[in-house]
Amino acid sequence: MNLNLGNVSNALIGKSLKTEELKGEKFNVFWGLPIMSSDAISSVAYAGEEILLILMPVMGLLSYRYMLYASLCIIFLLFMLIFSYRQTIDAYPGGGGSYIVATDNLGTTAGLVAGASLIIDYILTVAVSASAGTAAITSAIPSLLPHTVTITLVLITLLVIGNLKGIRESSKVFGVPTYIFIFLILVMLIWGIIKINFMGYVPKSSYKIPDVSGTITIFLFLKAFAAGCTALTGVEAVSNGVPNFREPSQKNAKIVLMLLAFIVLLMFGGISYLATLYHAVPNSNVTVVAQISWQVFNGGVLFYIIQAATAIILVMACNTAFAGLPLLLALMAKDGYAPRQFAKRGKRLNYSNGIIMLGLLAAILVIIFKGDTHYLLGLYAVGVFISFTLSQCGMFKRWTKIKINGWKHKAFINGLGGVLTFVTTIIIGVTRFTRGAWVVFILIPIIVYTMEKIKRHYLKVAQQLRLSMDELRKYEKVSFEGQKRYVIVPIDTLNKSFLKALNYARTISENIIIFHVSVDDEVTNKLLKKWNEYNIGIPIIVKKSPYRSIIKPLAKFIDSEEYAAGPKDTITVVLPQFVVTKWWGNILHNQTALLIKTILLKRRNIAIVTVPYIIDEN
Amino acid sequence: MNLNLGNVSNALIGKSLKTEELKGEKFNVFWGLPIMSSDAISSVAYAGEEILLILMPVMGLLSYRYMLYASLCIIFLLFMLIFSYRQTIDAYPGGGGSYIVATDNLGTTAGLVAGASLIIDYILTVAVSASAGTAAITSAIPSLLPHTVTITLVLITLLVIGNLKGIRESSKVFGVPTYIFIFLILVMLIWGIIKINFMGYVPKSSYKIPDVSGTITIFLFLKAFAAGCTALTGVEAVSNGVPNFREPSQKNAKIVLMLLAFIVLLMFGGISYLATLYHAVPNSNVTVVAQISWQVFNGGVLFYIIQAATAIILVMACNTAFAGLPLLLALMAKDGYAPRQFAKRGKRLNYSNGIIMLGLLAAILVIIFKGDTHYLLGLYAVGVFISFTLSQCGMFKRWTKIKINGWKHKAFINGLGGVLTFVTTIIIGVTRFTRGAWVVFILIPIIVYTMEKIKRHYLKVAQQLRLSMDELRKYEKVSFEGQKRYVIVPIDTLNKSFLKALNYARTISENIIIFHVSVDDEVTNKLLKKWNEYNIGIPIIVKKSPYRSIIKPLAKFIDSEEYAAGPKDTITVVLPQFVVTKWWGNILHNQTALLIKTILLKRRNIAIVTVPYIIDEN
Repeated sequence: MNLNLGNVSNALIGKSLKTEELKGEKFNVFWGLPIMSSDAISSVAYAGEEILLILMPVMGLLSYRYMLYASLCIIFLLFMLIFSYRQTIDAYPGGGGSYIVATDNLGTTAGLVAGASLIIDYILTVAVSASAGTAAITSAIPSLLPHTVTITLVLITLLVIGNLKGIRESSKVFGVPTYIFIFLILVMLIWGIIKINFMGYVPKSSYKIPDVSGTITIFLFLKAFAAGCTALTGVEAVSNGVPNFREPSQKNAKIVLMLLAFIVLLMFGGISYLATLYHAVPNSNVTVVAQISWQVFNGGVLFYIIQAATAIILVMACNTAFAGLPLLLALMAKDGYAPRQFAKRGKRLNYSNGIIMLGLLAAILVIIFKGDTHYLLGLYAVGVFISFTLSQCGMFKRWTKIKINGWKHKAFINGLGGVLTFVTTIIIGVTRFTRGAWVVFILIPIIVYTMEKIKRHYLKVAQQLRLSMDELRKYEKVSFEGQKRYVIVPIDTLNKSFLKALNYARTISENIIIFHVSVDDEVTNKLLKKWNEYNIGIPIIVKKSPYRSIIKPLAKFIDSEEYAAGPKDTITVVLPQFVVTKWWGNILHNQTALLIKTILLKRRNIAIVTVPYIIDEN
Repeated sequence: MNLNLGNVSNALIGKSLKTEELKGEKFNVFWGLPIMSSDAISSVAYAGEEILLILMPVMGLLSYRYMLYASLCIIFLLFMLIFSYRQTIDAYPGGGGSYIVATDNLGTTAGLVAGASLIIDYILTVAVSASAGTAAITSAIPSLLPHTVTITLVLITLLVIGNLKGIRESSKVFGVPTYIFIFLILVMLIWGIIKINFMGYVPKSSYKIPDVSGTITIFLFLKAFAAGCTALTGVEAVSNGVPNFREPSQKNAKIVLMLLAFIVLLMFGGISYLATLYHAVPNSNVTVVAQISWQVFNGGVLFYIIQAATAIILVMACNTAFAGLPLLLALMAKDGYAPRQFAKRGKRLNYSNGIIMLGLLAAILVIIFKGDTHYLLGLYAVGVFISFTLSQCGMFKRWTKIKINGWKHKAFINGLGGVLTFVTTIIIGVTRFTRGAWVVFILIPIIVYTMEKIKRHYLKVAQQLRLSMDELRKYEKVSFEGQKRYVIVPIDTLNKSFLKALNYARTISENIIIFHVSVDDEVTNKLLKKWNEYNIGIPIIVKKSPYRSIIKPLAKFIDSEEYAAGPKDTITVVLPQFVVTKWWGNILHNQTALLIKTILLKRRNIAIVTVPYIIDEN
């Protein structure tokens, strides 16, 4: 089976890569931009709509004005973040995610809170974006609607496979649609503005704009602002992923970050402006972007291409999480806060365990919520802003401590960033608390607690395994001359496999006990008869087991022997195990040997010897 | 965790039972009847309706007459089966299921075909009946409709737990509703007849009887007959389960079989007659039985109780399968045609693996078909009739061979049974082929092939393990004096766990090789420095692994050593393994030792020693 699985794995993922090939697996600016920022870029497809959705029922036609205000606030926040993160990239060439920055400057707990927040948001990104992408597909082809969950799961599976293949290949696979999306939205913006301002097109909204039913309140505006802040998720990924860039990686990352800012500025601002020009009204059937592009392109072929590109980029947005989360988990695992397996590079040199875990958890969320993004959106974005805040505060504290040249300017930028992101976190937390944000506030402490527990575990293990020079000197004097060796060989049937084990036992000791657990009198009598007939000269100990358990009587016997042997002697248990060459063969045998091993391993003075007997099936 | 799991298991299933308690866990006639025949009895809830469903669109009002004819044919077939199976019970006191009878008299392949057919039908019984029971519940409480699959899965889980608890307890749990159902249907029959014949009630059908649009054809009548034959599934269970009855088990089983026949006769015939009197018309909203009982009880409380009892007994019908399939699988496993684990009694003395497998497969079917019985019904009943036919033919052959007193009479009964069931199998197979029966005709050969392959596997294993007297004599002369012992101890880090393993290795040999696989130069250099510093005096062999695999270089090295050692010497690999006491601790470590063991076990001249090092976490 190993061979077969290996072949399947090669076909899907590609051949193993050598550790030295690590350097080749990195992106330049051209491919780094789409793969690191598809999350941020794709969110322009819905961020403006989210704002209008909050404002429209109350403010009617006036919504467009306040939408522009909110968009400007968000773009301002974006640029503050970009400037802040450029400083982070300079300071942390090894990847300056919130986890590192917060740990480094604010202490472990802050770092873990930042890490936990990001983990939650990365998983949500995949679940939300894949579901939204599916929704875009099923809106275009309604006959696929009953298969929403299946399609979403297939998409996630494809993403997992693509990411397991490796960074460079996946950037090419996933980068192209991002460029197509950017290009098409820009075409729409330019043509849309020309059409109205120079060609005298009179926009006709297909949906009625509600009447103004209230006045603008601060809370309403903040709610709209908070809704639009989903556009900012994903910025973290670039500075977290500095080592993923080709040398000079810091410079490349900073270029990508700046390009990202301008693209989001252009697209988010542009779509907000077009929404105003074309009087788009959010509703559950047709997206705002679709309403605009329908009018701009007269429902022509470009409309359909834009819809398709939107669907694709929403799925691609998941990829930011696939690039970010495994790296974050690897960092945390190296520090001992996450299971060690996340720090291990897979055959294609990426952190395959993180990729698979992300895919699995997102798939579970999709199954639980039946691919409905509505419930998931409430939990979204809080996590990212908590980590933003911690990262900015960490950077601020760093500058005030190390006081390098121009530290005041740097501290001002990060300090302002910290205040703004903190305020935004509060705004998002409050306006979305009942919509699901409360779950995040419960999950973060649980995750942090678990991570600290994991760390304690690793520490304890390391402490107990550590060797001092003294202990080693003691070891050198150990003599094995007078030591008795107790060897127990359990027997079930007198066959070749048992005999091979007994042979082996005889090579290491002359002090052998054969032990038989009797669950069936008939079988035991047959065995004893055969045993006596064959006259091997080693006594057999028989123990009855009324509850049919093989392991309990054996464990009990070993415990009593262990007691008799004294604390210094090791008891060796030799287990005959026949090995079948075909993988399905193992299903056909009671895996008693395995169970015995698991139980016995918990004893201190024991050594378990497995003597395989190969069954040839050809 | 073992302790916790044990407690949960005790709370759910009850304490372990001793092997000697086996005799107590059997049923008398009173409890054996409902548990062994709930499948057959519950089918009267839909068998009549299935017949009408076929006839009504063509025959209109005339359907009732042909329904009575079809019902009479089915009841005749039922009695033929009962007489045949009474003879089987006499001949096979150890349980005379089709598998045994066919194997015994017609050969292995016939037996396996019978077994495979029954396995398919038992699994379908659980899936279909649990789904139908849920449908009855959701019809009464429509608000539960979106949770159909969940409810069905909960029901199956409860059945699994109940059955794992053990035979006697489960018979009481599951037997009562069957009696309630029988009692209520009888009340309905009697009152329904009195109401029309003596009280002058004029039935008013709530649904329009379709006009007569065709004439009766043989194919139509056979289709109706085949549809009604679902009433006969489950008869097998009684004769298959003879050992489940208290002594005298054969007599008790025969009594139950006879009682079953009369109950089905009364209820099935009675409902057919009442359907005629009350002009019930099958439709997708209200069942035929519900239409009758609504009129008989004027929609009063008894109507609702009957509906509830119907729902419950449909779920209980699954229990016939839970009583039958594990026993069948245990028989097949003892013969080597099914994985051995099915023959092992669980802590409550029942065949727990079979119970769990049945629950799992049925649950998978329910999930795949989303709890919709419609698709499953097409596959149903073919399997049972194939096994009926093989069983009857087997009995017929038996009588013609052994020719005991009165064999001609016995052979006539089983021969007639064989012809009738064979004809019925053909009828069901043909009329339902396109509705899903074809799947069964594909599955049976696949299952039979797999079973034969399993048998061949077990035979090969047994052959290769078997010891002849000669081989044993050879063994007695073996001398271990001059034998060199090669011991390899892999090292990752120089810590206490490794040292304990090395200590053990030194007790069994002086020929020790320390082997290190280098995946990270830094780690390796650190290890080598420490190694030289400590000056233990044993050389270390370092092998670079560019693909980061620990196992491949180690396996390669062992192969080369094995080659050097020659075919007679055993190579011992001593693996240090630290053991964490908390169950979740294992998740936190790369299970390299386990993987190494799995790979190395496939080598012939090897012994693998695991030396545990316990990490104390308190």
